[in-house]
Amino acid sequence: MTEKIVVIGGGPGGYVAALRAATLGADVTVIEKENLGGTCLNWGCIPSKIMKNTADILQKCRKALDFGIQLEGAVLPDMAGLMARKNKILASQRAGIDGLLEGRKVNVIKGCARITGPGALEVTGEDDITASLSWNKLIIAVGTRPMNVPDFAFDGKKILSSNDILVLDHVPESMTIVGGGVIGCEFAGIFTALGTQVTIVEAMSRLLPLPSVDTAVSKLLLREMKKQKITVLCDTVVTACDTSGSGCQISLAKSPFTDNPKAKDPKTDTIASDLMAVCIGRTPLSKDLGLDTIGLDTVGPGWIDVNDRMETAVKNVYAIGDILGPSRVMLAHVASHEGLVAAGNAMGENQTMGYDAVPGAIFTMPEIGTVGLSEEEARKKGLEVDTASVNFRVLGKAHAIDEIAGEAKMIVDKSSGRVLGMHLIGPHATDLIAEATLAIEKGLTAKDIAHTIHAHPTLAEIMGEAAAKATGMPLHG
Amino acid sequence: MTEKIVVIGGGPGGYVAALRAATLGADVTVIEKENLGGTCLNWGCIPSKIMKNTADILQKCRKALDFGIQLEGAVLPDMAGLMARKNKILASQRAGIDGLLEGRKVNVIKGCARITGPGALEVTGEDDITASLSWNKLIIAVGTRPMNVPDFAFDGKKILSSNDILVLDHVPESMTIVGGGVIGCEFAGIFTALGTQVTIVEAMSRLLPLPSVDTAVSKLLLREMKKQKITVLCDTVVTACDTSGSGCQISLAKSPFTDNPKAKDPKTDTIASDLMAVCIGRTPLSKDLGLDTIGLDTVGPGWIDVNDRMETAVKNVYAIGDILGPSRVMLAHVASHEGLVAAGNAMGENQTMGYDAVPGAIFTMPEIGTVGLSEEEARKKGLEVDTASVNFRVLGKAHAIDEIAGEAKMIVDKSSGRVLGMHLIGPHATDLIAEATLAIEKGLTAKDIAHTIHAHPTLAEIMGEAAAKATGMPLHG
Repeated sequence: MTEKIVVIGGGPGGYVAALRAATLGADVTVIEKENLGGTCLNWGCIPSKIMKNTADILQKCRKALDFGIQLEGAVLPDMAGLMARKNKILASQRAGIDGLLEGRKVNVIKGCARITGPGALEVTGEDDITASLSWNKLIIAVGTRPMNVPDFAFDGKKILSSNDILVLDHVPESMTIVGGGVIGCEFAGIFTALGTQVTIVEAMSRLLPLPSVDTAVSKLLLREMKKQKITVLCDTVVTACDTSGSGCQISLAKSPFTDNPKAKDPKTDTIASDLMAVCIGRTPLSKDLGLDTIGLDTVGPGWIDVNDRMETAVKNVYAIGDILGPSRVMLAHVASHEGLVAAGNAMGENQTMGYDAVPGAIFTMPEIGTVGLSEEEARKKGLEVDTASVNFRVLGKAHAIDEIAGEAKMIVDKSSGRVLGMHLIGPHATDLIAEATLAIEKGLTAKDIAHTIHAHPTLAEIMGEAAAKATGMPLHG
Repeated sequence: MTEKIVVIGGGPGGYVAALRAATLGADVTVIEKENLGGTCLNWGCIPSKIMKNTADILQKCRKALDFGIQLEGAVLPDMAGLMARKNKILASQRAGIDGLLEGRKVNVIKGCARITGPGALEVTGEDDITASLSWNKLIIAVGTRPMNVPDFAFDGKKILSSNDILVLDHVPESMTIVGGGVIGCEFAGIFTALGTQVTIVEAMSRLLPLPSVDTAVSKLLLREMKKQKITVLCDTVVTACDTSGSGCQISLAKSPFTDNPKAKDPKTDTIASDLMAVCIGRTPLSKDLGLDTIGLDTVGPGWIDVNDRMETAVKNVYAIGDILGPSRVMLAHVASHEGLVAAGNAMGENQTMGYDAVPGAIFTMPEIGTVGLSEEEARKKGLEVDTASVNFRVLGKAHAIDEIAGEAKMIVDKSSGRVLGMHLIGPHATDLIAEATLAIEKGLTAKDIAHTIHAHPTLAEIMGEAAAKATGMPLHG
């Protein structure tokens, strides 16, 4: 009997699950209420990287003369041009996913899915026509939306969500970003390069207050942000935002959430800026899914629990991606791997999802790549570790491309020499983390990496330098 | 007894050997007749990458409007500015090496070394003063210089070596590059970006006619060069170069060396260009070293033979780096690893040098990263292999940065699934090859890489895509 699999959500988890299930022989339908590609393609990873690309090139243009390039006139960002390019790429990427799904004979339905009972489902399309659908396996991949704060709710004009920022039609003179997490820090770099005066307000004691980001990386990012004239206010929260005047009057207070016992009141009660962007987290989209009709409970604001086979508590119902909430890792590449696992298991395989070697890629300036344990996490677990840190400035290639700011920190298990964590901030860090991820996935040691030849002159040499140092035989660092 | 080790040559092999030997407790002297850093830092890898960086940024500037950046005036290369930046970086890098050597108490002598017998050596400095030196272990790392062709000898004005190109004070209107190997192809991309009309004359049937470069990579490079309006004449040699007029009149003939039985006579007998650059190989610098005084023979034009412990036929005498010739791999990172091996063995360790997982990094446009066997090499060895090729255009990140041209080809052993080779041409290929190098070094399989999570959106996803395809489970490619 052919499995009839319905996937709710066409983001990276959902469409990858659909492709894999179809490859394995299932009759697959994907239901997506907006555009294929989900948050990642439409409102996250890809559009922000298109903006970052322009920001990077702008920075190079401003330093052109240093590189031996004469630009005879002014260098100006052109937001309309940037948005046009962004829209064009997103459209082609969506078409690409559509083509892949079509190629593997996956049905794609545009509409809102609502589960109506075991094996049953309704889809309401744009024209309000509702169709019924049956399934014998269900994969829930509905994702999240930006979290709204009632005290300063999104208005799409002055108080912006991360979605709103991605469709801005001009470069604001000033912007306050609430939340110094991944999204906030990425936008801070991009808009600073575009010419905006940026202030970050972060409730915790440091930027990127995620367990997976080592303190050393956070510190170096703060240093670089200061060089870029970004104002960073830690231990601070926004309590209100008055938009009645020409811009935003933003009220600040000492953060009640901070982990810093010495946190002080902010130096100023209010700050003014043209816009305020709120990037403090995401809200699950499970509310109107009809999960009650199959007896599937959610956790907290609506997260769905699964085991490592991506099975929910309800038989034949799987969940993947951001809807699993922050207890799993909310990243596109995690969602797509969870999708492979869920699809495999739905088709009778026996796969499990592991989270020990999940790389993180943060497109700040400089970039960040992390994988495995931070030093703090390792010590909290009671592990005896050695650490080795090397600066990117020891690499000739970093000088050649004028991107010398950065550091690599390797966390190594003292007794076995195994690499437990790698934390990179510097040029191409998001690509370089791949080697460390493979090392951790396969349980390799610092010596294994030190004995591996790294091509010169490349940025990947940083891995060899860190590993050499970790084995007590430093080269340049 | 403290080992007294003399290293002749301060290039990447020599100075790394010196650092390691000093770390292990030796009394070390490095003798260098020019600048520390050798060909790599002074006349190769680093200066060419500084030029390439400017070339890359120029290309981005020319497309600025596409990215949403208005450049109101002209975009012009400024060779004086580029050379000033280059000189500044080289000086700082040389100072860096000097500092490392000083930090580990290595003596550095500037001068010409001449072995005078077992354990003896003379150094002639700039002021023609000769000093004697004793050694009980010797590491020869003297390297090479660009190969001169008597029929059209370097004149430093119109007929240039790769060294001459690196100190050009202007952007020539046109340039013919003799030799479509690594150096020739890198310069072709750089000068095309700077605005020069480039012609490559290659004696073999394809660009980059090295066993380590897969045919697929060579083909794609040719396609991209054609897009950039570079003229490529394969199966062709230069027979003469008349510099009596305003530029160069270059005579061509069908190549007697080509591997192409169908090679035809060139369409035209002569071509004209402002300059001719000759990049056809390198000549060993062992001639005046006094090797006969210790009974050490050389091979061919002066290459030195060693075993995998980097020992020559003469006891206590080691050789490393480019002086070993093309039968080993002539690359800076190979030299430095050979340096570590030689230093370790000179200090009583028992190390061997392996060449199975040597990455190659070629800074063409797009970049190339290779490691392990090409498909042709694998088949010649009689291995049964599967191959999987994926285009970079399947990656969202490649679109975000507007660098979609490129391909990844994985060579996998059919029975074991082990990765035998990886051939990348595309953005950041020289960094991305590191993951494949670790995989080959550790004998990992395509499945190991496919099961490793690759961060999205990064260029490293190409490794996951290729591995997924090699295991019969393609994702986007």
